[in-house]
Amino acid sequence: MTLKDTLLQIGQAARDASHAVARASTGAKNTALLATASAIRAQRDELLAANAADLAAAKADGLDAAMMDRLTLSEQGIEAMAQGLEQVAALPDPVGEITELRRRPSGIQVGKMRVPLGVVGIIYEARPNVTAEAAALCLKSGNAAILRGGKEAIRSNQAIAVCVKKGLAAAGLPETAIQVIETTDRAAVGYLITMPEFVDVIVPRGGKGLIERISQEARVPVIKHLDGNCHVYVDSAADPEKALAIVENSKTQRLGTCNTAESLLIARPMAASLLPKIAAMLTARGIEIRGCDETRALVREAKPANEEDYATEYLAAIISCKVVADVEEAIAHINKYSSAHTEAIVTENYTTALRFLREVDSASVMVNASTRFADGFEYGLGAEIGISTDKFHARGPVGLEGLTSQKWIVLGNGEVRG
Amino acid sequence: MTLKDTLLQIGQAARDASHAVARASTGAKNTALLATASAIRAQRDELLAANAADLAAAKADGLDAAMMDRLTLSEQGIEAMAQGLEQVAALPDPVGEITELRRRPSGIQVGKMRVPLGVVGIIYEARPNVTAEAAALCLKSGNAAILRGGKEAIRSNQAIAVCVKKGLAAAGLPETAIQVIETTDRAAVGYLITMPEFVDVIVPRGGKGLIERISQEARVPVIKHLDGNCHVYVDSAADPEKALAIVENSKTQRLGTCNTAESLLIARPMAASLLPKIAAMLTARGIEIRGCDETRALVREAKPANEEDYATEYLAAIISCKVVADVEEAIAHINKYSSAHTEAIVTENYTTALRFLREVDSASVMVNASTRFADGFEYGLGAEIGISTDKFHARGPVGLEGLTSQKWIVLGNGEVRG
Repeated sequence: MTLKDTLLQIGQAARDASHAVARASTGAKNTALLATASAIRAQRDELLAANAADLAAAKADGLDAAMMDRLTLSEQGIEAMAQGLEQVAALPDPVGEITELRRRPSGIQVGKMRVPLGVVGIIYEARPNVTAEAAALCLKSGNAAILRGGKEAIRSNQAIAVCVKKGLAAAGLPETAIQVIETTDRAAVGYLITMPEFVDVIVPRGGKGLIERISQEARVPVIKHLDGNCHVYVDSAADPEKALAIVENSKTQRLGTCNTAESLLIARPMAASLLPKIAAMLTARGIEIRGCDETRALVREAKPANEEDYATEYLAAIISCKVVADVEEAIAHINKYSSAHTEAIVTENYTTALRFLREVDSASVMVNASTRFADGFEYGLGAEIGISTDKFHARGPVGLEGLTSQKWIVLGNGEVRG
Repeated sequence: MTLKDTLLQIGQAARDASHAVARASTGAKNTALLATASAIRAQRDELLAANAADLAAAKADGLDAAMMDRLTLSEQGIEAMAQGLEQVAALPDPVGEITELRRRPSGIQVGKMRVPLGVVGIIYEARPNVTAEAAALCLKSGNAAILRGGKEAIRSNQAIAVCVKKGLAAAGLPETAIQVIETTDRAAVGYLITMPEFVDVIVPRGGKGLIERISQEARVPVIKHLDGNCHVYVDSAADPEKALAIVENSKTQRLGTCNTAESLLIARPMAASLLPKIAAMLTARGIEIRGCDETRALVREAKPANEEDYATEYLAAIISCKVVADVEEAIAHINKYSSAHTEAIVTENYTTALRFLREVDSASVMVNASTRFADGFEYGLGAEIGISTDKFHARGPVGLEGLTSQKWIVLGNGEVRG
């Protein structure tokens, strides 16, 4: 069988299984999730052995330390996977929710019912824990899933897939509801993203390059997460204490996350008094400041920033900084340079806050809060399949709801159209 | 300037204007809509003259009667356009609506704010009234729009564009918020659908061929409306009177609309008593019946149906018919052959009704109501930019809300992440 035929067969099996998953009861889905968690705990030794084989092969291939770290499944990591499955089981089931049911003048009642998307394809790096997490979120939201993890994790992923199959079987659900692609041939991704008859949406999780390539080539919708060039704007009406705390937390709590602030804007009337203090705090925490001329006049240690700096997601101990006239210039700068992920304003002025909330065109817009809050768990979604920087369908952190759609339902009593 | 440069210029102008439209007040948008309506009434003679020139050219080109009909702007049609604009002005503004604002354990409040998509591209046939309607819906939902109508309507569309510009100017909004592409070169569509930097979504309105081609080639999301192969399933627990009325209305009220029923399924226990009556009603209304063997045993005039009949949107005085065992077989048949537009069940059985509602995977699913109700106006959307047969983003009739997105907002008081 050719690789293309293999993928088509996987796709057809997923489509067939998707109907059973879509109509599965909440109880059956939760049974599958809890049984998978039990299987993961019971098969701990098999999982560790499979992962050890992956790690040995990766080491021989000279994988870097960060990738080795993500590839590693520890005993703790296995327990965390099992607990993650139990947490998803505990979340409310989004499927079947009926909203906005209203009576129309014709007599019919019209509303919306939340339903699964169908088949979700997930493409991710060599991180075995994502296999369990993605399987759980797709299943709970009533979708079949096709999972394609990084090839270095293939043995670990297959061992996890065995546990997921046990879970599905325990609930009487088809084992093909969650399929892990077994081939490590890269061409499989190309087929997976171009079968609209079998796959309803693709969620790529990984670097910007991977996501851009998939978006370019996909023939199905993609929930994409590109970069997070997040801004904090300190307004002229900012509370200085809040500004210091929010800039510190947004930039320095974690350097490598997508919701980390990469750029600081500060209103001119506030700059002389506050920017040196913020700069001292950042410098003390090892952050390099790259600023405009006005920044550099106030902050001796600041290096010059160029156009590219303002557009860069550093994911490193660097922040760009610009003095702006007011909220209007701040919004214009953000809407020009930002990657539309997350931006925060620090202000005590009601009208300025509302304007920032309305006019900044990003997935998350915050007043007086750290950009680090842009996260599915912090937002109360319970779990997160990714963060979307798109406007279409799902925006920002995507939880179970982002893996569903709403259809219209009509409840009549024999009505016909006049 | 090359055609591509022209389109890029139009795109850039739309993107620039989109920010002003996005932050425009409800009052300003309504002023623009009402002023456009006034201009359309005031320029009636100019519109009629432009349309007469289009009609003369179309006649010389040998356009068929149906296309000539859609191209024609009568005095009544002009008044209807003006009233349509007034109706959109009267609709609630979806932009800025804040929902689900909840306090999180961290102290922040997290919710969603409804915002425009940005720039909407609409591609449609030679129907001048769509120009006014699409402009109104995009403007009210806070989007800039690029409109590309069928080339036969170019003079009429330009005359309407003059009125829209007057309306925008009266409200102090940029005239480039709504642009009508002036070139009739077909290649313009190819550029319009491949500029993701300037266009956020494409809404094609027209035949299936046009929509399939656009979906294939687009590099931006497409709200697509393919065919409407709609089903009515008469269950064994159906009320015969309701069944007769619903089949009659679903099939015969209008033959050429996408929500017209094209296929009748009937449960075996009901077929012997009811199918002959339904068939007699349909035959009396000039509808040809193409059925399975069991249908033909009960209905002398029925012709044989083949696989293709069950998958066909006739848009004509023909209906396919199949006797099925029960609701399970009906659902399986529908999910196999339907175009996922609209399906109805006729039943008095509660459990059967709920099962049909849950398991039929179409944009609109109805109990005891005519499929003809699948329509933005009947659903209470006030207006409709199209009907989506997709699951992603908007599904079924798409009103103002379908032209918006939701971003997350966070209201804090200096919170940082621990």
